Amino acid sequence: MGFAENLEKLHNIDRESRHLERVVTLLRWDQETYLPEDGVPERSEQLALLEGIAHQRRTSSETGRLLSELGSTPENPRGDEKLPPLEQDFLKTLRRNYDRALMLPGDFVSAAARAEGLSQAAWINARRNNDFSSFLPHLTKMIDISRKKAQYWGFENNPYDGLLDVYEQDMGADAISAVFTPLAKRLSLLIKKISSLPRPDNSFLDEDFDIENQACFSRDLLERLGFDTNRGRLDISAHPFTTTLGSDDVRITSRFLPRLLLSGIFATIHEAGHAFYEMDFPSELRGSCLADGASMGIHESQSRLWENVIGRSRSFWESSFPVLRSYFPSTLHPVKVADFYRAVNLVEPSLVRIEADELSYSLHIILRFELEKELFSGSLNPAELPAAWRKKMKEFLGLEPETDTEGVLQDVHWSMGAFGYFPSYALGNLYGLQFWEKLKSDLPQSEQMITGGNFAPIRAWLRDTIYVWGRRLAPQDLLKTVTGNTLSSEPFLAYIESKYGEIYGF
Amino acid sequence: MGFAENLEKLHNIDRESRHLERVVTLLRWDQETYLPEDGVPERSEQLALLEGIAHQRRTSSETGRLLSELGSTPENPRGDEKLPPLEQDFLKTLRRNYDRALMLPGDFVSAAARAEGLSQAAWINARRNNDFSSFLPHLTKMIDISRKKAQYWGFENNPYDGLLDVYEQDMGADAISAVFTPLAKRLSLLIKKISSLPRPDNSFLDEDFDIENQACFSRDLLERLGFDTNRGRLDISAHPFTTTLGSDDVRITSRFLPRLLLSGIFATIHEAGHAFYEMDFPSELRGSCLADGASMGIHESQSRLWENVIGRSRSFWESSFPVLRSYFPSTLHPVKVADFYRAVNLVEPSLVRIEADELSYSLHIILRFELEKELFSGSLNPAELPAAWRKKMKEFLGLEPETDTEGVLQDVHWSMGAFGYFPSYALGNLYGLQFWEKLKSDLPQSEQMITGGNFAPIRAWLRDTIYVWGRRLAPQDLLKTVTGNTLSSEPFLAYIESKYGEIYGF
Repeated sequence: MGFAENLEKLHNIDRESRHLERVVTLLRWDQETYLPEDGVPERSEQLALLEGIAHQRRTSSETGRLLSELGSTPENPRGDEKLPPLEQDFLKTLRRNYDRALMLPGDFVSAAARAEGLSQAAWINARRNNDFSSFLPHLTKMIDISRKKAQYWGFENNPYDGLLDVYEQDMGADAISAVFTPLAKRLSLLIKKISSLPRPDNSFLDEDFDIENQACFSRDLLERLGFDTNRGRLDISAHPFTTTLGSDDVRITSRFLPRLLLSGIFATIHEAGHAFYEMDFPSELRGSCLADGASMGIHESQSRLWENVIGRSRSFWESSFPVLRSYFPSTLHPVKVADFYRAVNLVEPSLVRIEADELSYSLHIILRFELEKELFSGSLNPAELPAAWRKKMKEFLGLEPETDTEGVLQDVHWSMGAFGYFPSYALGNLYGLQFWEKLKSDLPQSEQMITGGNFAPIRAWLRDTIYVWGRRLAPQDLLKTVTGNTLSSEPFLAYIESKYGEIYGF
Repeated sequence: MGFAENLEKLHNIDRESRHLERVVTLLRWDQETYLPEDGVPERSEQLALLEGIAHQRRTSSETGRLLSELGSTPENPRGDEKLPPLEQDFLKTLRRNYDRALMLPGDFVSAAARAEGLSQAAWINARRNNDFSSFLPHLTKMIDISRKKAQYWGFENNPYDGLLDVYEQDMGADAISAVFTPLAKRLSLLIKKISSLPRPDNSFLDEDFDIENQACFSRDLLERLGFDTNRGRLDISAHPFTTTLGSDDVRITSRFLPRLLLSGIFATIHEAGHAFYEMDFPSELRGSCLADGASMGIHESQSRLWENVIGRSRSFWESSFPVLRSYFPSTLHPVKVADFYRAVNLVEPSLVRIEADELSYSLHIILRFELEKELFSGSLNPAELPAAWRKKMKEFLGLEPETDTEGVLQDVHWSMGAFGYFPSYALGNLYGLQFWEKLKSDLPQSEQMITGGNFAPIRAWLRDTIYVWGRRLAPQDLLKTVTGNTLSSEPFLAYIESKYGEIYGF
């Protein structure tokens, strides 16, 4: 059989994998949005069955055979060099996914899935009852499983490197530390400085904001950002998320609570940033494993860029605040846009990551990264986590949680064994500003565009410069290709210092 | 391997088939309710893939082997007689599904699916452009395919019998004719009589009714009927339907149009009737192929019983009209409940089946049944359908469609090759009244219960008498078991004559 035929077969297998993944995603999306309460247990069985079928197909020997026929091996994943570059990237990505799936024995995968289910349930209870000790055996188990996973996959120095690689290819713990450690110092100092300055007034947000109106404003905002509702939707869920159910079916969720006006707005913008990335991959990648984000960190750079750099900018609220005010005329009538801008950028260290401001956010992440690193190097025992958490929290943000619920138990990630995921959030902040610098030099009028509510040129730039690559490049290669630079926190810090210096007057 | 082990394996296979079916159903439900417009083409590919997987599993040789091991053969489908009756019913049903799936060659099934897709698209255009001739080649093809299907499955006299058997097991065309022919005569006469009598005034319905309020009333109604929203939901779609996504996840849809108040209300009640059946199968049938309606006709008996016998009764509106009026105080304030009752039972023959009143409805069905019968006996040529339609319409309802769009092109069924489906609707009317007679004799207070809005005893009776059987009994056996009688139109006609005699005063 010829190359062309083998390649077509492989593309078909890949396309079908994508279809199955998206069916699984629909089951999950529906569970978060519309599934009646009592339907949950049976939904888990449907999911388990579908995921079993998907795993079987992902690891079918047919895929391995076709990859080999096309010259792709673990040592030379890109396959025969006569193939066009796009096909070589395709083979490389498929090879990576295939090898990784095969490296985990089937019974290990199902045992891990079962342990994860129990661990998540235990975490929910532990968090509710502020009882870390009841979660400890599960946490220990999840760490063991992750360590084993890293061993199956292989790693450079520390098993933690093997886990990080899942979310951020080729970024080891040392490379991340080299950036995160000085970043943490600079951010801590800045926060200390700001805390000694007068606090902007945001008492006008301490009101009840009708949630129907909040939802309408969010829909209005999405329309102004150019979110295409023929290819996506906004729904409500307890925790906002973005999900891709098809090349032309990208859905986001948000949540609206009467006393948290800002929370719903920025959740919508954040998820829209993820959705734009997913919606605008180039058509030649459609349906393939290359129609995906370059990494979790790069994906997060897109959501954070829209949420913070654009969404929390003065230019953005120049045009958006009058619209927001029209939805809440009585409450927001007396508020000036300048005061609203300061309120959405209030720096106020708190204990909880998901409520953190733009400055403290990265510190919440670096704290988790450092603890994960110590856990996997063996220098920190899981039982010592609550104390270590409190110590670092004090060091980074000057706060100490009174309970583990507000401390080490606050996030779901560890209960799911998702060690190595957290750094993506802070990396996203850094990548985002590196991209933004380049965008501003290519589009010198970007600020005026935002003020005028004209987001199309910005979306086009992101599409043609970043999304166009899909998952063809590893994150660091994408960064280099787009910006010409390697990972750096300088653009982020320069942006933070200039923006907050102006707001707080230092 | 022992009986018990084989049986458990077979139950597992069956349960997994159900999970897969329900995943397919979720994909379809989502397509009708929330899927963004441009997501449709990719959804078709997802569906095709999943249906392929489901078909593969349904026809796996493992199922055939296990059935044989348990003593089930095509001649003795119930398997070993030492098995408990419930398990024998299980084997019988699984054997029927398995044999039927295997009888159709794989390439025939996919060719039929492709032809069906083209035919449905052609029908949509033909209906839009009132152009029967452009649909004719597709219709002819769908008839050929159905004829072949009947040949694969086998049939008694006419290929049409083989098709009817899919929807209404063991009901051949002659048995149905024996009931439908005299029924059509009696109904036609009744309609003629009523058309000469004064027409009740329903002009108060000729208003705009806010669709949000309509939806709220429908939700309110569902709550009063005891629809459990922990186990189901109401959504909006272009064509109302009921769908089972899990034993505890049964969803209905309705549609609300400003000028069609009654349409939305009765769609909701109709679908609730289907949903109650699906929600209340006994727990020992849970997740098995026996947790299903006995037939399409029996299912339709449940929706029509709630929609018409209960939902269009005077007792029902005694308690429900004040609630409805509270949603539309200005429009409905002057209306008396007696006038509203007459308006929901207005007899007014029209050209379109889905808008038909309780009396004309069965005539619309019998017309289609007779045409299908002639098509498959060969006495009617597909090209002659439009003329035959007009002639029968004139004969049954005294009306003649001016266009084929309002005539032979109005329904989707034939374009999908669903020949033999239509009779279920009219059979449902007949079964429904046979069941209702029995219910009234068991629950002599049923009318007072309805007046009092106390539906729980009626739901319990239906559950304990009908739903309890799931699909264990063939429809005629279920009818016999519940009522002691064979199929008869007498209870339906007696109900119609008494109800409409009273309304129209004859």
